[in-house]
Amino acid sequence: MKATKNKLIIVGTGHVGSAVLNCALSLNLISEIVTIDKIKEKAAGEALDSTHTTPFTYSPNVKIHSGGYEQCSDAKVIIIAAGPSIMPDEKSDRTVLAERNVEVMKDVMSSITKYTKDAVIIIITNPLDTMVYYAENYFGYPKNKIFGTGTSLDSSRFRRIIANKYNVDPKNVHGYMLGEHGNSAFPTWSLLNIGGVPCNRLDEYFKPEEPLDREKIASKVVDVAYDVLHLKGFTSAGIAMAACRLAKAVLMDEHSIMPVSTTLEGEYGLNDVALSLPCIITENGVEKRIEVPLLEDEIAKLKASAENILKTMRAAKLVK
Amino acid sequence: MKATKNKLIIVGTGHVGSAVLNCALSLNLISEIVTIDKIKEKAAGEALDSTHTTPFTYSPNVKIHSGGYEQCSDAKVIIIAAGPSIMPDEKSDRTVLAERNVEVMKDVMSSITKYTKDAVIIIITNPLDTMVYYAENYFGYPKNKIFGTGTSLDSSRFRRIIANKYNVDPKNVHGYMLGEHGNSAFPTWSLLNIGGVPCNRLDEYFKPEEPLDREKIASKVVDVAYDVLHLKGFTSAGIAMAACRLAKAVLMDEHSIMPVSTTLEGEYGLNDVALSLPCIITENGVEKRIEVPLLEDEIAKLKASAENILKTMRAAKLVK
Amino acid sequence: MKATKNKLIIVGTGHVGSAVLNCALSLNLISEIVTIDKIKEKAAGEALDSTHTTPFTYSPNVKIHSGGYEQCSDAKVIIIAAGPSIMPDEKSDRTVLAERNVEVMKDVMSSITKYTKDAVIIIITNPLDTMVYYAENYFGYPKNKIFGTGTSLDSSRFRRIIANKYNVDPKNVHGYMLGEHGNSAFPTWSLLNIGGVPCNRLDEYFKPEEPLDREKIASKVVDVAYDVLHLKGFTSAGIAMAACRLAKAVLMDEHSIMPVSTTLEGEYGLNDVALSLPCIITENGVEKRIEVPLLEDEIAKLKASAENILKTMRAAKLVK
Amino acid sequence: MKATKNKLIIVGTGHVGSAVLNCALSLNLISEIVTIDKIKEKAAGEALDSTHTTPFTYSPNVKIHSGGYEQCSDAKVIIIAAGPSIMPDEKSDRTVLAERNVEVMKDVMSSITKYTKDAVIIIITNPLDTMVYYAENYFGYPKNKIFGTGTSLDSSRFRRIIANKYNVDPKNVHGYMLGEHGNSAFPTWSLLNIGGVPCNRLDEYFKPEEPLDREKIASKVVDVAYDVLHLKGFTSAGIAMAACRLAKAVLMDEHSIMPVSTTLEGEYGLNDVALSLPCIITENGVEKRIEVPLLEDEIAKLKASAENILKTMRAAKLVK
Repeated sequence: MKATKNKLIIVGTGHVGSAVLNCALSLNLISEIVTIDKIKEKAAGEALDSTHTTPFTYSPNVKIHSGGYEQCSDAKVIIIAAGPSIMPDEKSDRTVLAERNVEVMKDVMSSITKYTKDAVIIIITNPLDTMVYYAENYFGYPKNKIFGTGTSLDSSRFRRIIANKYNVDPKNVHGYMLGEHGNSAFPTWSLLNIGGVPCNRLDEYFKPEEPLDREKIASKVVDVAYDVLHLKGFTSAGIAMAACRLAKAVLMDEHSIMPVSTTLEGEYGLNDVALSLPCIITENGVEKRIEVPLLEDEIAKLKASAENILKTMRAAKLVK
Repeated sequence: MKATKNKLIIVGTGHVGSAVLNCALSLNLISEIVTIDKIKEKAAGEALDSTHTTPFTYSPNVKIHSGGYEQCSDAKVIIIAAGPSIMPDEKSDRTVLAERNVEVMKDVMSSITKYTKDAVIIIITNPLDTMVYYAENYFGYPKNKIFGTGTSLDSSRFRRIIANKYNVDPKNVHGYMLGEHGNSAFPTWSLLNIGGVPCNRLDEYFKPEEPLDREKIASKVVDVAYDVLHLKGFTSAGIAMAACRLAKAVLMDEHSIMPVSTTLEGEYGLNDVALSLPCIITENGVEKRIEVPLLEDEIAKLKASAENILKTMRAAKLVK
Repeated sequence: MKATKNKLIIVGTGHVGSAVLNCALSLNLISEIVTIDKIKEKAAGEALDSTHTTPFTYSPNVKIHSGGYEQCSDAKVIIIAAGPSIMPDEKSDRTVLAERNVEVMKDVMSSITKYTKDAVIIIITNPLDTMVYYAENYFGYPKNKIFGTGTSLDSSRFRRIIANKYNVDPKNVHGYMLGEHGNSAFPTWSLLNIGGVPCNRLDEYFKPEEPLDREKIASKVVDVAYDVLHLKGFTSAGIAMAACRLAKAVLMDEHSIMPVSTTLEGEYGLNDVALSLPCIITENGVEKRIEVPLLEDEIAKLKASAENILKTMRAAKLVK
Repeated sequence: MKATKNKLIIVGTGHVGSAVLNCALSLNLISEIVTIDKIKEKAAGEALDSTHTTPFTYSPNVKIHSGGYEQCSDAKVIIIAAGPSIMPDEKSDRTVLAERNVEVMKDVMSSITKYTKDAVIIIITNPLDTMVYYAENYFGYPKNKIFGTGTSLDSSRFRRIIANKYNVDPKNVHGYMLGEHGNSAFPTWSLLNIGGVPCNRLDEYFKPEEPLDREKIASKVVDVAYDVLHLKGFTSAGIAMAACRLAKAVLMDEHSIMPVSTTLEGEYGLNDVALSLPCIITENGVEKRIEVPLLEDEIAKLKASAENILKTMRAAKLVK
């Protein structure tokens, strides 16, 4: 059953999934949203709460309800936020999470593929790159139609931190965090510019209180995820926006370029690992990975990041 | 310091306050949002997480940060979501909550009034009507500038339930829940209409599966709050939208009519109690309470609801 | 070819069509917009100008281009704004316009039906009701999928005028102008209420400068169209919003109730004439006409309005 | 009188001003809009037509009306779209227009300064750079609070053309047209990149049908304004969005970087001429001009463009 309207499925309605639900509503673009959760009460509760927003003047009459995987059959986008999150004490070891969530993804992907291979699937579940690799390669789903939010969030944090430092709108900060969504993600300093001013001249142009310290910023981008984790117990708003921004790019067929996680096919000499590179997002999912020009040390970091992801993938027994 | 821009303060960043934060962001109307919480980490964590949404393409560069009450000095709207929530097992007794939250409100209102009497204050803290009465009458704040979300949420639930029954857009369902925000709220059946079709002819026009059972619907509206509570553990999305819809009416000076809680001054013979009636919301807060025409049995229910609120107010030692 | 995305066709790119184009862009809901005009340069120019809005930060990457009727094949909504407008000196005689525009509609509808019978068609071309009747009944298009903006605009004017008088948000003014889109449209005073306060008590509640004069308001609603016409030379913004609001109801499958023009089938004893009654708008177009309860004198006005439309229809030789 | 709410004044309600009005409404950010025009009927007609959009469900209750310059006293933003436009046959000679519109600006600026020096003024009137120079330097208005839309529109056209060529979202095309708003504007190829891929590698990465021809694109960006002019008779949608995007940056205090026209103070050795460079836009107008790194030939083009503007300024007797 081919989708004829903007229907979104959210799998998993924990902190992240419920934030996705409410962020998706604010897009004013989706006419039906279905929540799916192993804990049916949670899926129903989140849907019910959110339906109470729809009678307010500026809220469109979106159909919001919980359901089973059969709801996927005419969906355009499926966002997977299922599985337990990373915990504050697990910074150094994502392998525990990997093992747990491979089981979760197995269940989710098997259930989805019973009903559709048309919808674009956006994965949030951590450890993200391992989950993407698994989902893309083990279920016969069209590869381009699956991707992970990846470093779209890390990049947003990077841009926010740089924007704060130089007191400009982050939408004028261009540049990415690439590689793993998580600890080994790295900023592509060579691509960073603010409104056309390159990285190495930012201090001169925008006169920040302290000069740019690349190492410090790079660490801060990774650490800020843990800051949120420690301060509020989990992260939700940022990641929900990342997923919904991507969903909008799909639903509007925008051909937007954002760093998302997919299985590489030779880019920078890398294969058989999923990580984030800038990609063109269309109604069909990832239309193209862009092997952006990187400096040697950046490519080295990308490869180190790939190595890091492979460790998790091995722990999850997805590769040897 | 008179506010010159759309600055919002959110006091309390639990489930509700953090939902308000993200819903407020989606209004695309507010240029600065400050979170305040006794637990400074929570306020900081919520603000930090939400700032990570701002670099995404369609998200405006809102200044989001945590702070102290001095931030209120140039705010236009303050939403108070502080204080513990009602718990699943407290349906029949809001007095425990009242005692706890009177202390919370005392602290919050005393702190706010040090810095401003200009901002419009929207209260969410429960038991709502008691909190509104207390805030309006004990701190010398301009009365019209304080109101509670009241039955704006209960009304939204009522309209959603009616809309579901007759399969129409809830924005075309007109009518209110009035009185207490909570157990004694009641539907004003005499005002209910769908697109001009009055209550007693709805079944004839819209042919629902089951005929309209007023008692059942009235109970369902009250119960659905507990359904959400039991299903997901708390309520957040609906109430956040209610508060943000009201904030928009203030910021845009819309003169919108919504049922909100204020201290009555003789309406239906009632005084010295706060409850929800339809009110005109402007940039100055509540410009006017509308003593809408009600049937005798509806007025009786309103009075019974007032009596119910008074019980809580007495328990909280706000009146004798 | 079944539509899988939100594609809008605008036929006619004069003052109204071009206003529709830009209003439609602001919905943030439509991923492709195609303009069609006999004067190909005009269609191309409007599309080209509007594409220059898309690179700005908050504007989605909508595909905007001109084209031929083959573009209708996968469209979800078609808005027809073709044909010359009413001129300031033609108030008393819409028949001239009718003859001219029947030819226009013949061409447009024949062209559309070559490519689709799936899209929902929203007609703006005047004299509106005659055009709707013709389009609905002469081309074998599914009737429910065609309707005219009808008195949705007249109702909006009515609500704005009442809202101004009583200084409230027009979204809280409930009531319709029904019948003809134009001179014989009339307010349904019996359905008018502001937030639950009925028509005959409005003065008492909202204390306007002058008491309500129904005749005066009724005339003013009709005359204000000519005021706009005389002041700016044509009308565009209001009617564009009416059409786009309806398009949103279709694209979001909102089940919203709005007064639109369709061919009646026995409502109030009327047949074989198109005029505006409140209707439920869904993804399939008009799901249901609502024969709202009217007073006898209102029904008389509706019949007189129908008679007026029939005159135009006769002049256009659509009925005898 | 300090502005406390988002009030916008639009001076001039021709094709452009009326497009600004309707685009501004769609921002959902402004609570009051006032139109001013020498032809009072036009200002009134546009305001009246637009008020008829406000009762529709998703349209906020914005106060829209026409008025005199006294309305500027508590405005936050004033957009000047007054004065006759460039005509299709005037491509080579903007001096005729300059003389005419200096008189218009004199009248407008003198009238505004009677009531405010607080509002941020955004100029659209052509020849743009000459008008900006005049408005900034002859009326004692705070310089930073006046700027012209400048090449924000030319840049948008540039980005749209590049985006079409490479089939990507124009929001991922970074780069500017700088200099004059008009014939001597030029693309800063050295700053152009798509998602991090620099200009000289675009063909390799995105494989367009035809290789990049810089001269051809540069001409096309300038010519497309005339294409719109010839195809539809005037330009309106693009320029309206440019002005409204800038107004949003002001109202939200976004610190966004956009190319706008201001009087230079030594940038690239240029003085006493207004032209477009990337600027940081805040609630105070232009906070900073960014002397972005340019190649020598780009600086030469900038200087040639300045020379071109000076010719118009001389013709308008603003400089010798």
